[in-house]
Amino acid sequence: MDPLAATLTALDYAAVAVFGASGALAAARAKHDIITFGFFAAITGVGGGTLRDLLIDAPVFWVARPQYVAVCLAAAVGVWVFGWGQGRERTLLWLDAIGMASYAVVGALKATSLGVPPFSAVVMGVLTATFGGVIRDVLAHQPSILLRRELYVTPALIGAAVFVGLDAMAVPGAVAVLMGFLAAFTVRAGAILFGWQMPGFPGRAE
Amino acid sequence: MDPLAATLTALDYAAVAVFGASGALAAARAKHDIITFGFFAAITGVGGGTLRDLLIDAPVFWVARPQYVAVCLAAAVGVWVFGWGQGRERTLLWLDAIGMASYAVVGALKATSLGVPPFSAVVMGVLTATFGGVIRDVLAHQPSILLRRELYVTPALIGAAVFVGLDAMAVPGAVAVLMGFLAAFTVRAGAILFGWQMPGFPGRAE
Amino acid sequence: MDPLAATLTALDYAAVAVFGASGALAAARAKHDIITFGFFAAITGVGGGTLRDLLIDAPVFWVARPQYVAVCLAAAVGVWVFGWGQGRERTLLWLDAIGMASYAVVGALKATSLGVPPFSAVVMGVLTATFGGVIRDVLAHQPSILLRRELYVTPALIGAAVFVGLDAMAVPGAVAVLMGFLAAFTVRAGAILFGWQMPGFPGRAE
Repeated sequence: MDPLAATLTALDYAAVAVFGASGALAAARAKHDIITFGFFAAITGVGGGTLRDLLIDAPVFWVARPQYVAVCLAAAVGVWVFGWGQGRERTLLWLDAIGMASYAVVGALKATSLGVPPFSAVVMGVLTATFGGVIRDVLAHQPSILLRRELYVTPALIGAAVFVGLDAMAVPGAVAVLMGFLAAFTVRAGAILFGWQMPGFPGRAE
Repeated sequence: MDPLAATLTALDYAAVAVFGASGALAAARAKHDIITFGFFAAITGVGGGTLRDLLIDAPVFWVARPQYVAVCLAAAVGVWVFGWGQGRERTLLWLDAIGMASYAVVGALKATSLGVPPFSAVVMGVLTATFGGVIRDVLAHQPSILLRRELYVTPALIGAAVFVGLDAMAVPGAVAVLMGFLAAFTVRAGAILFGWQMPGFPGRAE
Repeated sequence: MDPLAATLTALDYAAVAVFGASGALAAARAKHDIITFGFFAAITGVGGGTLRDLLIDAPVFWVARPQYVAVCLAAAVGVWVFGWGQGRERTLLWLDAIGMASYAVVGALKATSLGVPPFSAVVMGVLTATFGGVIRDVLAHQPSILLRRELYVTPALIGAAVFVGLDAMAVPGAVAVLMGFLAAFTVRAGAILFGWQMPGFPGRAE
């Protein structure tokens, strides 16, 4: 495997593990049992990529390669047994930022490599990075990340757009991937460190 | 393009724009930023048709033709910049009625044209017309349109059934489309103007 | 049709009808109209199998065979007209247990028969058995069955795993189906009769 492919695979599994753990932590907050931990871990870890694959009519990535789901379940066990992530909200935020930035680029890359037009490929990057968390919040009966003012969808959008833009300009794949990842991660880091926000709707709320 | 196809395309884009705006207005109510406006606009505008295409195993319509998503984003910008729709609840209700009636017929038509049996084609019309709004409400953490007493699913069902019924009787396409649209629109208009309702469940609520 | 296939078909329709009725009962609780009854019945009855078919890239089972949706609508009419299930929570719980156990096995069987790897086939059984109820609860704006402490996902998981395990060991299909069904049903029966629970997360809830 060439270095780029190896890096992408590593980023992919890292994102699955981090999102899986965030799903399990949502289950921990409500004191659920281990099965529900696993359910939330799996749905958060692979949910975004599942939606992407359905939309671009690709075989859903984890069905033929269940190790992705196994990684989620391992993350759930880690949260349960070792209390991974508990009381480490800051660490988790940073891991989640890595996961989000990875998924934004990996999601867009999979779309472009299957011939999806650039605009839709950006959408796929955004959905891959954000929809697992959205499904987690909906199923946990919580307001979703879409409803928080913190920048989350925005960095995913920027990262996916940077990657797709560079890719369309025939920049070498490794460079486009790296720049997309860094763009998403940097904007998210600004949100975590400095509370960066976009302005809310200035008009009347009706 | 023949007149029927041109009309259908126009109705299709009109429905996307109207539903997109309704998604952006949901975001406006919570004072979200422009990215969330776009997210809600896109998911509301194309959500119902996306579910339809997944169910009938057609390529998801907007992936290869991202202009549909672009229309949603334009509607979101319109709401943000010009306050489209704000304080115009009545106007919006009527535009939404046109969108719903269009989607009910367009959704059923796409299904029948791909060989889906009549009964399922009616279901596709209903889902196309209603599911974008359902997803919008679930993601906005609001009770969905399914839970309101106002007639909304019912006119979509009637419009889709009228179209599919006439189509099965080999009525010319333009006539079937027009009658289906008018049936859905008329029933919805009755709900808006006169508060038409179906009777609620008369039994005990347990 | 051989006896196994006939049994499977019967279990399949029984599960659709029971889940359809449970969807209609959710609508009855909120005093909805008959159309919403039908919508909830259909989405609860066929939702889990729909997700399974999308994930394994099979044609969605009810699109070409709308009689499945018709069974849901008949269940909705039964609840509306005859008050089926109302005041019979215990009876319903047992019927639901049969439906859940059927779907866990039928869902896993469909996946294995299409060449899905064993681990993913278990996931498909679990999703088929539980996701209709999850969608019902999300759309009814209720906390989903995932959030209750009662054993529900767990028996589905056990039933699907027993079936897939025996199937992988080349046990005859009828035996594997029966053992899977009984495993799921027995564990669920224990939950209903004796309040069986899995231990909740023992750590801090943050």
